[in-house]
Amino acid sequence: MAQSHELDAMFYPGSVAVVGASANPASWGGTSFLSRLQKLGFPGKLYPVNPRDTEILGLKAYPSVKDIPQPPDLAIIAVPASVVPQVLRDCIATGVKNVHIFSSGFAETGLEEGRRLDREITKIIQEGGLRVVGPNCMGLYIPRSKLAYWGAEPVGSGSVAFLSQSGGHAEMLSEYAQDLGVYFSKMVSFGNARGLQAVDFLEYLAQDPETSIITMYLEGIRDGNRFAQLIRSINRNKPVIIWKGGLTESGTRAVASHTGSLAGEERVWNAFFTQTGAVRADSLQEIIDVVMAFLYLKPPRGRRALLIGGGGGNSVAMADICNREGLEVPHLAEETRQKLNDFISLAGNSARNPVDAWMLQNNVELFKRALELSVADPIVDLVILDQYTWNADDDDIPGNKQEADKVGDFLIDFARSNQFGKPVVLALNGRFNAPGSATSTARLWRKFALAGIPTYVSQQSASRALSRFIGYHQYQQKYTGVT
Amino acid sequence: MAQSHELDAMFYPGSVAVVGASANPASWGGTSFLSRLQKLGFPGKLYPVNPRDTEILGLKAYPSVKDIPQPPDLAIIAVPASVVPQVLRDCIATGVKNVHIFSSGFAETGLEEGRRLDREITKIIQEGGLRVVGPNCMGLYIPRSKLAYWGAEPVGSGSVAFLSQSGGHAEMLSEYAQDLGVYFSKMVSFGNARGLQAVDFLEYLAQDPETSIITMYLEGIRDGNRFAQLIRSINRNKPVIIWKGGLTESGTRAVASHTGSLAGEERVWNAFFTQTGAVRADSLQEIIDVVMAFLYLKPPRGRRALLIGGGGGNSVAMADICNREGLEVPHLAEETRQKLNDFISLAGNSARNPVDAWMLQNNVELFKRALELSVADPIVDLVILDQYTWNADDDDIPGNKQEADKVGDFLIDFARSNQFGKPVVLALNGRFNAPGSATSTARLWRKFALAGIPTYVSQQSASRALSRFIGYHQYQQKYTGVT
Repeated sequence: MAQSHELDAMFYPGSVAVVGASANPASWGGTSFLSRLQKLGFPGKLYPVNPRDTEILGLKAYPSVKDIPQPPDLAIIAVPASVVPQVLRDCIATGVKNVHIFSSGFAETGLEEGRRLDREITKIIQEGGLRVVGPNCMGLYIPRSKLAYWGAEPVGSGSVAFLSQSGGHAEMLSEYAQDLGVYFSKMVSFGNARGLQAVDFLEYLAQDPETSIITMYLEGIRDGNRFAQLIRSINRNKPVIIWKGGLTESGTRAVASHTGSLAGEERVWNAFFTQTGAVRADSLQEIIDVVMAFLYLKPPRGRRALLIGGGGGNSVAMADICNREGLEVPHLAEETRQKLNDFISLAGNSARNPVDAWMLQNNVELFKRALELSVADPIVDLVILDQYTWNADDDDIPGNKQEADKVGDFLIDFARSNQFGKPVVLALNGRFNAPGSATSTARLWRKFALAGIPTYVSQQSASRALSRFIGYHQYQQKYTGVT
Repeated sequence: MAQSHELDAMFYPGSVAVVGASANPASWGGTSFLSRLQKLGFPGKLYPVNPRDTEILGLKAYPSVKDIPQPPDLAIIAVPASVVPQVLRDCIATGVKNVHIFSSGFAETGLEEGRRLDREITKIIQEGGLRVVGPNCMGLYIPRSKLAYWGAEPVGSGSVAFLSQSGGHAEMLSEYAQDLGVYFSKMVSFGNARGLQAVDFLEYLAQDPETSIITMYLEGIRDGNRFAQLIRSINRNKPVIIWKGGLTESGTRAVASHTGSLAGEERVWNAFFTQTGAVRADSLQEIIDVVMAFLYLKPPRGRRALLIGGGGGNSVAMADICNREGLEVPHLAEETRQKLNDFISLAGNSARNPVDAWMLQNNVELFKRALELSVADPIVDLVILDQYTWNADDDDIPGNKQEADKVGDFLIDFARSNQFGKPVVLALNGRFNAPGSATSTARLWRKFALAGIPTYVSQQSASRALSRFIGYHQYQQKYTGVT
C-alpha cells in the first residue's frame, strides 16, 4: 500500500468522526454511516458527534469535533447545510485535515441561500487548507480499509476505481458490479466538488498500486486542459473509462440542478475522447461491460469476430449489430467451412459466419469440434457466443438440459484456457419480460462472469464493449507505441 | 371476418394436410405441427400424409396428397427438399391451392443442388398457380382459426399482424409479445418467398378487419417500387412497423445464407422509411415497444416529455437519453415548480424536470399530488415514469413495500384514466444481472403491460418508442392531413 500520498490518511483512516449521527435509529445519513462502519468492523476509532446525545450506537458521543480527544483522520459531515460552515471551522480549529461533506442544499438548489452557503464553505475550505470531498455526495467507499459506509456491502476488494459526481450512480454501480464479480479498490462520490476535484483524485489513483482501471461518471470539469492532459497521461498505463453526463441540451439542464456544474458541449467532449484515448461509456452497465474486457482479456489482433449462435434471422441480427458497433464478420476460410459441413447439417444451419449452431447445443462433443474448428481459422480475431448455444436453465430452449449444461461447462473451460489466444465472450439474449427466463438468464450471467468470462446482456453490449476495448489498444499503438 | 379474399381459405382452412408427419413421436417438423393442431383443437379435418404409415397420432394416414378424398384447403409440406417438387405436383393434380413449404435446403444453402431445386419448385408453383408460403419457413400462425402450429400456444387473438422472413424471429416474437399481453391476428413466416411475396400478404392485411397494426421482419424485397407504394398507402390507415435485417455489409452476407435474398443498401432503406412513413424498428423488442404505443395511446400534441424518477445522476441520464431519442425535456412552469416545492424537500430532490421524486415513493398521497400537479402543466405533452418510483418488489429499494405497492396501483389507475389526455408510460430500469431484481422487474413489466400501459425495459426503449410513435403521426399530418 502506498503511504506517501497526502490522501492516504483519507482513504485509509485510523479514526473517523461522524458529525450528525444520532441516537434515533431511524435517522438516515450520519447514523446509517456509523452503523454500517460498525457492521463492517471498521478497525479504527469511531467518534459520533452530536450535541444532543451522550451515547450513539453504543459509542460515546461528542458535542463537537473540537471535543474529540485526538483529531480524527477523517470527519464525515451529515448535518443541515446551514450548520456545515460551523462544523468546517471546528475541523480547522482542531486540526482535522480530511473531510467528507455529505450534506446537500448548496448551489445545486438554484436558490440564493444555497449559493450563499456554497460561497461561504468554498472560502472556509480554501483558507483552512481542508481536503474536502463534496458537498452533496456519498463520499468514500474503500473496501480494503472497511470504509464503505454506503452502497453494496463489499465482499471483496478489487483493482477498479470509480470517481463519480453522482452518489446514486456510485451506489448502483457497487451493487451491479459486485453481482458480476467486479470489485473496487476505491469509489469516490464527490458531488459538487468544492474542495478536491476530479483531477486530485485522478492524480492519487495514477500512483495507487491498488488501482489498475479507472472509471468515472462526470458532470462538469473546471480546468479542461489540465484534465485532458492528465487523462491522456494516465491512460497509457491505466485505462480510463468515462461516462460523461449532460451531453445533450436537456441533460445539461439536469446537470445544473444536480451538481450545479457546467456540463460543456458534446462536440468538445467528442474531441476530448479522440485526443485522450479515454474509453467512452454511456451508462453504468457500459462501464462494467468495458471493465470486464480489460480485466479478463488480452487484446485481439484485430476486429474480425466469429459469431456463434442459432437461427437464420438471429444470425442476420448478430451480424448487423456487430457491424454497426465497429466489428467485422468475415467469411470463414473455405477449408474451415468444408470441415464444418462434414458434421453440421446444411439445411437449416449455416457453416458460414455467423455459425448457426443451434442443432449442436445438446451435443457437447459436436459443439466442441465445431467451436475448435472455427476458432482456429486464422481469419478469426475474437469470438462472441450467443446464449442460444448453452442456456441449460431456460425452459424455452428445448432439448436435453444435462447436455446443454455440459456445453456451458465446456464453454467456461474453453474461454478460460485461451488456447487459441483469441478472446471469447458470451452474449446473453434472455427474454427479460418473462420471470422464468429473466431469472435463469441472470443466474447464467453471474455464473459465467464470476468464472472470469466477459458476459454481456446482449449482442449489442458485447460488440460495443469489445469494439471500445480494441479501440483503446489501437489508440495506444498509434500514439504511444504501447499495446 | 372478411370472406372475399382468395387467401381466406389459407388463413381459415376447413381442412389441412400435413405431408411428412410421421408415426415416430420424436420426429420434429410435420409431426409436431400435426400434434400441435390437435392440441389446440383445430376444428377442421386433419390429413397426415406419409407413404410409410397407415395411422399417425390416431388419424388415418394417406400415402400421398392425391389419396385424400377431398382436396384440403391447405397443405403443409415438411419433407426433404428433394421430395418437395413431387409433392407440389401432387397438390396441383388433386386441386390443392394453398401450400406452406416448411422444408429448407434450397437457394439458401448456396449449393448447386439447392439452387436447382429452387428453380424447379419456382417453375412448378408458377405454372400450377399455387399460392405458396415459403419454402424454408415456419408458415402460418392464426390464433382465431386455431392454425398456430408453432410458436407460443396462443392465449388470445389480437389485432397485430407479423410478416416475417425469419421463422425464428416469429417464434420468439409470439412468446415475447404474448407475455406482455400483445396478441396477434396473423403471423406469417414466409422464408424464401418463392410463391407469395410480402406484397401479397400486405394486400390481404390491408383489407383484413382483424388486423389494425402491421409489423414485419424483412430481409429482401423483389419489386421495391410496388412495395414502397403499397406501404405508403396502407400506412395511412394501419401503421406499418418494419425491421429490416441485413442493413450492414456483414448483415447482407448473413441474409444471403439465410433466405438467399438481396438485402439492399442502407441508404436506399433510409429513403424508403422517410418516403413511406413506415415506422422503423431494429429488433423484435423494438417492434413490440412501438406496438404498445399504437395499441394503448392517443397521439400526444408534441414531443415535450415530463420525466419522473429518482436521483440526481439518474435524472441527468434520463434527460440525456430522452434528448438523444428525439424528445424534449422542458422546464416546468415556475408556478408548477413553486407548488411542487411546497411539499418536495428541495435538498436532494428537484422540482424541475426530470422531477426527482424518490422521496415520495413510499407515500401514495404525496406522490399522487406531485404527479397530478406536474402532469397538469401545459408544457407537458407526455409522461415517462421511472421504475424507481414504484417497484414495490425490488429488495434494493428501501422503504415500506405496502405503500410502494399502493403507488404502483395508483399509477395504473392514473395512466388508464388518461385524465389529462397525455400519454403516460413506464420505464423499467431493473438490474437484470441480479436474479431477484430480474424476477421482480419481469413481474412488474407484465403487471403494467397487461393492464394496458406501455411498459418498457429502459428509459431508452421508452423514449425511442414514443419518438417513433409521434413521428408516425407527424408524418400522417404532414403528408396526408390524417392524424
